[in-house]
Order: sequence, then C-alpha cells, then structure tokens
Amino acid sequence: MKRILILGAGRSCTSLIDYLLEISQENQWIIRVGDYSEELAHEKCHGYENGQAFQFDINNAEQREREISAADIVVSMLPAKFHPVVAKVCLANSKHMVTASYVSDEMKALDAEAKEKGLIFLNECGLDPGIDHMSAMRVIDKIREAGHRLTAFESFTGGLLAPGTDEGNPWEYKFTWNPRNVILAGQGVVKFIQEGTYKYIPYQKLFRRTEQVHIPGYGYFEGYANRDSLKYLDVYGLRGINTIYRGTFRRPGFCRTWDIFVQLGATDDTYEMEGVKDMSHRAFINSFLYYNPNDSVELKLAHYLQLELDGPEMNRLKWLGIFDNTPVGLDAGTPAQILEHILKKKWTLNKEDKDMIVMWHKFEFLEGEQKKEIHSTFVAIGDDDVHTSMSKTVGLPIAIATKLILQGKINKPGVKIPIEKEIYNPILDELESLGFEMSEKEV
Amino acid sequence: MKRILILGAGRSCTSLIDYLLEISQENQWIIRVGDYSEELAHEKCHGYENGQAFQFDINNAEQREREISAADIVVSMLPAKFHPVVAKVCLANSKHMVTASYVSDEMKALDAEAKEKGLIFLNECGLDPGIDHMSAMRVIDKIREAGHRLTAFESFTGGLLAPGTDEGNPWEYKFTWNPRNVILAGQGVVKFIQEGTYKYIPYQKLFRRTEQVHIPGYGYFEGYANRDSLKYLDVYGLRGINTIYRGTFRRPGFCRTWDIFVQLGATDDTYEMEGVKDMSHRAFINSFLYYNPNDSVELKLAHYLQLELDGPEMNRLKWLGIFDNTPVGLDAGTPAQILEHILKKKWTLNKEDKDMIVMWHKFEFLEGEQKKEIHSTFVAIGDDDVHTSMSKTVGLPIAIATKLILQGKINKPGVKIPIEKEIYNPILDELESLGFEMSEKEV
Repeated sequence: MKRILILGAGRSCTSLIDYLLEISQENQWIIRVGDYSEELAHEKCHGYENGQAFQFDINNAEQREREISAADIVVSMLPAKFHPVVAKVCLANSKHMVTASYVSDEMKALDAEAKEKGLIFLNECGLDPGIDHMSAMRVIDKIREAGHRLTAFESFTGGLLAPGTDEGNPWEYKFTWNPRNVILAGQGVVKFIQEGTYKYIPYQKLFRRTEQVHIPGYGYFEGYANRDSLKYLDVYGLRGINTIYRGTFRRPGFCRTWDIFVQLGATDDTYEMEGVKDMSHRAFINSFLYYNPNDSVELKLAHYLQLELDGPEMNRLKWLGIFDNTPVGLDAGTPAQILEHILKKKWTLNKEDKDMIVMWHKFEFLEGEQKKEIHSTFVAIGDDDVHTSMSKTVGLPIAIATKLILQGKINKPGVKIPIEKEIYNPILDELESLGFEMSEKEV
Repeated sequence: MKRILILGAGRSCTSLIDYLLEISQENQWIIRVGDYSEELAHEKCHGYENGQAFQFDINNAEQREREISAADIVVSMLPAKFHPVVAKVCLANSKHMVTASYVSDEMKALDAEAKEKGLIFLNECGLDPGIDHMSAMRVIDKIREAGHRLTAFESFTGGLLAPGTDEGNPWEYKFTWNPRNVILAGQGVVKFIQEGTYKYIPYQKLFRRTEQVHIPGYGYFEGYANRDSLKYLDVYGLRGINTIYRGTFRRPGFCRTWDIFVQLGATDDTYEMEGVKDMSHRAFINSFLYYNPNDSVELKLAHYLQLELDGPEMNRLKWLGIFDNTPVGLDAGTPAQILEHILKKKWTLNKEDKDMIVMWHKFEFLEGEQKKEIHSTFVAIGDDDVHTSMSKTVGLPIAIATKLILQGKINKPGVKIPIEKEIYNPILDELESLGFEMSEKEV
C-alpha cells in the first residue's frame, strides 16, 4: 500500500484531505495526516479506514525523518518557511512533494538534485498561486501555438462572499483567507506595465486606482493592483508584452472605504500603540485624528478624509462598529493587529455563510493585424463556513496533483510550478469534471 | 602646546574650524584637521600658523591610533557610524571627544568607563540636535525652579532661505543641509502627545497636518511633525506632560506641494526604477500617473491630486521644471534618488544666497492655577553659500564646547548631551556674545 503523508490539517486542508480519503480505498492508499494538534488531524480523517491521524511536530527531526521516509509522497501544508526543511528530507529519501506556496530561493536551489533523482517538487499548486497559473497558461499556450502575438494580460482573483450571503453587510465581504494578509495587502509599491510604460502606484494611492470589471451573471467587481505583476513576465515568459497587470477583486465601493484605514494609518504594522488595554474602537480611530474635544470622531474623520457624513463609506464604517465605545479586547498591538481584531468581530464567516472565489483573466492578442480579446472566468461557491470555495479551490488542485504524481501520470522531475501542459492539463481537466470550470470566451 | 584633532572637514565644519583657528594663537593650540580629501582639509586651514591639514582615513587603524593618542581632545565630524570607532580609541588613550550626532546605543555603552576615566564624550552639540536641547532646557529648568508645572512643549526648527534670497522661488526653499534627509523626511509614522492623548500621523497625511506659526519680524512658518517627539519625554524628563510636539519649519504652502511628491510615490527609496537612463523629468512624473496617451501630464496630475491647474502648487512644480523634457541625468536610481537629483538643479544655493535658521519653542505652564506661555525664538542668517547660518549654528556650539572642555570650564565626565546647566549655560552665553541669541518672551 502506498502512503501519502499530509503535514498540516488546518482550514485549507479540508477538501484536500477529503478528496484523498475518498479515493484511498479503491487505490489502496494510506493517508497519514499529521498536525501539531492531533485533534485537528483526527477531525479531518473522520472515520475513513485508510486515514491515520497523528500528532506531528516539524521541529522533531527524528519524527520528520521517520514519517517522510515511510511515505511515497509528501504534501506540505505547513507554514511556507518549513517547506525547505521538508524538501531536504524528501530529497534525502527520494520522495515527491507538493505544496501550495510560492517557490522560495531555498526551494529553487534543490532543482538540479530533484531532477537527478527523478523527483517532482510541485509548488504553487493551490488557487492563487495555482489555478491562476494553470488557467492563464492554457490560454497563453493556445494563443502562441496558433501563431498569434499576446499584447496584454490582466488577471484578477478575489475571495468574496457569494451573492445573497450575509445580506445587509455593506462591504459584501468577510475574511475567507488569512486576515492578516488582507490587512497588510498592498503595502510597499505596486509595479506594472501599461502600453509599454512602467507604472508605479504607492500604497497611499493604491485603493483609489481601481478598475471596475463586469462578469456576466455575477455583477460588478472592483480590482486593485497586486505588488508583483512584473515577476510574471519571466514566470509566464511574457517579456516584451505591452501590458501586464495582476490584481485582487473586491465588490464596488470596498476599496474606497478600505482606503480610509490606509489614510488613517490604521493598517501600519511597524509600531506598537500606547494604551491598547483600555482602548475602545472609537479611541483607536480617534488616535489618528486631530485633537479637538468638542468635535465628534465621526465628524473629524469625515472632514479629514472628505467623506459625506451619510455616504456609503461612513455607512460601511458604522456597520463595522468602529465608532463604538466597545473595548478592542487586546492587551497590546500594532495598528494593523488592532484593526484585524476589530474587523474579525464582523468579518468572520457564520455557519450558513457561503464564500465565493472569482478569477478573471483578460488576454489581448493580435491575429495578424487584428486585435482580439479572450476573457476567461472561474467562479466557485462554498457550501458553508467549513467547506468553503477557498478550501476547495486551494485543496483540490493539490489533491489531484498528488494523485496524478503517485499514479505516474504527472512525471516532470524538478522543482516545478504548474505552468507546463503536462502538469496543468490533467489537473484542469479533472477540476472541470468536478464542476470547477474556467469558461473562456472570445469577445 | 595642546592639540585639538578635528576629523572631517566638510561643509558643516567651516565655522567650527574657523573659530578654533582664530583662538589657536592666543591659547597656544595646534588645530589638526584631517579629512579623506587633504585638499579640503588644507582649504579649511587657509594659512593659519597653528592649523595643520592632513589626509585622514578612518579605516586606517594605525593612523587613527597615532593621531588620537597625540591629541588632547577629538572632534568627530565624520559620518555618525564612525563615532563609536573614534570613541573607543579616545577611551583607550584617555581623550575627550565632541560630536554633533545623536547618541547611539554603542556610544551610550561607553558612559561608565568614560566617567571612571574623567572623560567627557559630548554629543548632540550642534544645531538640531544641539542648540535646540540647550535653549529648551534653559527655559524648562527656569520654569521648574520657579515651582511651576510645565504642561506643553512644542518645538520647531527649519533650515530655510533668508527673506529676500532667491526672489521668485515660490518654494522659498533650497537645500541647506543633507538633501537626502530632506527627501526622506517623515517616512514611517509620527507620534506625539496632545492634551494627554497619543496621536499618530502616517506619512501619507503628514504634510497635510501642518501648523501655522507667526514669528514677529520674520513672518509665517508652516510646521510639520517630526517622527521622534516621544523620545524627548525621557531626554528632557517630561513624562506626564500633556502635550509634546517637535516639528520642522517650512514656509507656508511648501508642505501642501511637497505632499504631491509623497502622494505620487516619488519619495520612495525602496526600489530601483526601470529605464532611468533615458528618463526625462516629465517621464519620471508620468510613471506615477495613469496611462492615457491623449492627456497631458499636467492635467493628469492636477486631476489625480485635485490641484487647480493654475494654483500655487502647480506653479511651484512648474518652477522646478518637473514637467520639462530635460533628461534626469542619472543611470539608475530609486524614485527618491531621482527626485533629489532633479531638485538639486534648482535647490542648490548660489554664491549670493543667504540661508536662515529659525528655531521656535513654545512652553505652556501653570503658575499656580494660572496658565502661562513662553515663546523662545532663535534666528540666524548666513553670509553666503559657504558661511551659511547652518554651518555656523552647527559648528560654533561644537567649537565653543571643545574650547571650554579643553580649558576645564566644562567638566562633567561621561557620555553626555548638553541638557545640564553646567554645559548649556556657558555655551549659550558665548553664542549670545557672538550674536546668536535665543529671545524668550512671556505671552
């Protein structure tokens, strides 16, 4: 019996583990699930005969060695910094490995040795990075193979709420992924290329320079730019393209309101605030405003950032309760940590909430002299607060890749990301058969 | 004959060296001036019999040891990172030392040993830090000794142009100190206390939250907050004060226009721009604006940042030539480096330009139940582009302190800054006799 070792059993592993347990019997596979919390690992295995939950500590070298050497393939869902640790043991014991994380320099350095041993270390194989790579490269490869010239590539992904979920939430948003990353998103400078010109947007303008995108059947989305567009020039082989832009989707109006936190300095993670223990939501906001004992925090804020007192931005802020005298409930923290804590009170999924993943690519290309455009759209909706579309779209590509590698159907040794046909085609095909379709249309 | 060793002979050393050479004959002192550029050291000694210029390399351990061991006191005007290197040799050879720089942790660590050996390592003894400490502490000590309670301390310093200098320069500003520090000023968060409440201003709002201050005889100034107000709570022993705020002066309108560079991201020093070699001033600005081949850079900017097309801000920008097709003239650079290079073309002092230092403190205190206020003002005006008020106000306090230490008139061993009466009184007294007066008045 072959053994699949899954390290980490957190939220994003639900669908991944379910998928592999589901096919474990017919394939005669043992699925070993290790997490620092043995309880969490047990929960995820919920009664499958071939599932084995155990307590796992990545810092235990002996256990690391023993588990990995007994496995046939290792899926690391640990924090990204631990992947190289796992990878080195995999290399020493000649085991394949799969992750959902960006390839670090340390990981990249293992490429030659992995190739030599015929091992595949497949990374960036979740949603974003993951499905974004695969779905984009499939269209890019088609355009190139037809002999056309790609002139522009824009791509947006968003983790949002499904229509109808949490009615009355004026942000149309809750956290469906690492909240800390949502709070810190966009810090530093954003770079992209537009019509052959390098363009730069600083953090303080990022959430005011959005694009509105309509997706038939799902309405309007608002996109702001990601930091990292330029690195895809090399990843996708797009040097010389006129326009490249990657971004994140929110619902219209979100960014304008989020920008209020940016302008206040409430997303700053570089210093500890004073007096957090006794701080209310209202006092938190007030600490970024000018001093005047006679004016309300609401009016000071509206005046400071030129907001209408009864406009949609103030409405979103009031809905969050940031003007309330409620205690923050932390003993210490940076502005970013305090803001995260306040937002979680309203932005945590309820049992009945359904989340939604929306991914949208736009490709412009020249067919001879003729300008053409392809839009590619991917939408997934969650079942509830555990079986989220986020968990499915992160976990299923990893699960499918793991299966295909173990079955020998993906066989491309080296440190890889899923941008080669032999990798992305079978994964996308199976995702489609599971109902996760990327619909492409020429417009 | 006693020997004063001066390390560094740059711009800010002119008045310092002049002062000591002037009194070298009567005191029978040798003034040894070492700089990496021997020519620069020679220039500064210009024919004084007791002045000795030489080539000095701080990285030459043998020379360092030889020069310092032969001196009676060492003035380090080297970049601040070298002060601890110099200090350790001073300690080993039992020599006093004076600098104009902030006390680093490394320097602070030498306090006990310096005390033990009866040596004074006097730091922060230029203008800011320096005269600001001395003039503020003199008033603070007076208020306390009279038994009154200090409730608020605000302090501003600015290096500006003297009235009438560079007529038609709508910024009323040129670089009179390290240009790079001017470009990067305010990055990170600003903290202060106002009426007992901690207040935080992020960089993206800093230059829009100014104070207007009128100084009789010199007109209006605009102050923006410095990063470091809170650290003066301990330095000056002000814990429990209601308001503490330190800032920088510019002329009115400067900050609103500078904020344009901040909002664009043109002061960012964290990444290298692409295509700098072929970049014009205009292209530099355009790289921060949205793409539209049919709109002018001027209109795009005015619209982006809500400026009047013919308003004072656009006028200041046009005067700088930032919309010109002039090549930047650099091969590579961060936005901050490119902006500095462009600004230097217009913001470099001409021979006939006179600079001006303005320092202003406001002290609020309670005399019994009665609220009182003292304003303390210091203004210095330069002679020309070499004998600037900046060079004088930085150099003279150091020179005077050096003299007084050598004469045994300042005798407070340890790593010090000039906040004790025995140090600040004789220095301020002599500065006054040289025409640099801090005028205090109760308002």
